[in-house]
Amino acid sequence: MSETTVTAAILVIGDEILSGRTKDRNIGYIAEYLARAAVDVREARVVPDVEEEIVAAVNALRARYDYVFTTGGIGPTHDDITADAIAKAFGVGIGEDPRALAVMGERYTPDELTPARRRMARIPDGADLVDNPISKAPGFRIGNVIVMAGVPSVMQAMLDSAIVGVKGGALMLVANVEADGLPEGIYGDALREVAEARKEVSIGSYPSFSDGRFRNQIVVRSRDAEALQEAKAAVEAMLARLKGDARPL
Amino acid sequence: MSETTVTAAILVIGDEILSGRTKDRNIGYIAEYLARAAVDVREARVVPDVEEEIVAAVNALRARYDYVFTTGGIGPTHDDITADAIAKAFGVGIGEDPRALAVMGERYTPDELTPARRRMARIPDGADLVDNPISKAPGFRIGNVIVMAGVPSVMQAMLDSAIVGVKGGALMLVANVEADGLPEGIYGDALREVAEARKEVSIGSYPSFSDGRFRNQIVVRSRDAEALQEAKAAVEAMLARLKGDARPL
Repeated sequence: MSETTVTAAILVIGDEILSGRTKDRNIGYIAEYLARAAVDVREARVVPDVEEEIVAAVNALRARYDYVFTTGGIGPTHDDITADAIAKAFGVGIGEDPRALAVMGERYTPDELTPARRRMARIPDGADLVDNPISKAPGFRIGNVIVMAGVPSVMQAMLDSAIVGVKGGALMLVANVEADGLPEGIYGDALREVAEARKEVSIGSYPSFSDGRFRNQIVVRSRDAEALQEAKAAVEAMLARLKGDARPL
Repeated sequence: MSETTVTAAILVIGDEILSGRTKDRNIGYIAEYLARAAVDVREARVVPDVEEEIVAAVNALRARYDYVFTTGGIGPTHDDITADAIAKAFGVGIGEDPRALAVMGERYTPDELTPARRRMARIPDGADLVDNPISKAPGFRIGNVIVMAGVPSVMQAMLDSAIVGVKGGALMLVANVEADGLPEGIYGDALREVAEARKEVSIGSYPSFSDGRFRNQIVVRSRDAEALQEAKAAVEAMLARLKGDARPL
């Protein structure tokens, strides 16, 4: 395959996630969204609201992947330090952005633009704004880093804006095979043989547990439609063979 | 305060999380669980089922924090490579562990112990087993790294076993103040003043959005009960003052 893979990392910023007080829903949403956009998410991190931690993570991830998507820390309170940390990571200045103030002016009267709210107009020099149709205060993009809010509904709206400028990689094709009734311990060896003989596909086995029983799904991924179908058929044939052999467990 | 803080990182291992196919529920659960056990979670990462990525993350995190809790990649299929990666990270050997085979023998007959299932008995040399009351195949602990299953119900049972050997830090006390009715943009500046005057407490502001409206909670954390109560009272007084001033928005 000659198509280029486009890679990304997700960086979630916020003490409240690490304390367990808020359960992150952004990693899963962004991962699924980018998968559909043919961008491979290779890593995700959660860091606290501590400037040097944010700077270190941003610089590690932006050097390694095509894109970094951050969430959290761009609100109006003192613990919202993401914009300043991103400016520091890029070694650029930061100040009130007239474009950001202008869009915030659509929501707030001049009186309502408190110093706290004006903090949300602080944008690193050279960044482009990312539209926020929900609550106006914008996200931004600088270099390959896209900075979004932490509140899931706001982040999701920002992502729809931000994705427009993101170059998509080759489309990843996916096929699911239900292994219901057969446990991993029975098909694991045969599945490894199927996978090892097919380097152009990626095959994973995903057990889950609900209603008191295990359920297994085998997922085949490839950028090549023909290779995908061939591998899916091989997995199905393997399962059918083992179901014929299997004793009840 | 002279108590020692005990720190931890969470490492989630699995392609299925990064593709968005499975939504992680383990970070939030472990974070909340460890917070109650007075262990500070300082970082979380999600990495794919790729040996060098797992090795690099384990070595970076175990050097930096008191404990590392991993989930995922210890099942019976070929994509379950966590145990081997952990052995490599520690530079130790790995093989079938007679203790692990013995506990698995409580669930499986010798015939049922397929080569795939026997993979789940591969434990790095020198590791202690972590009990798995749900599906028997054990987790393990080596050095300061605790290795658990990815399926949430199994992980949760393993965590109850693993926590016994973990030294707890000083108890972190938490107080919540509802800022309902007042937006962050109104109280952000005053809250910063309250926070900056009290270095022995940590104060965060957490907006959420549901049923069409924003809701704000202010969370005060401290290891000192007296400092916590004083800061909580200061936040409440600040909010009461601003509520008196506030115009409807």
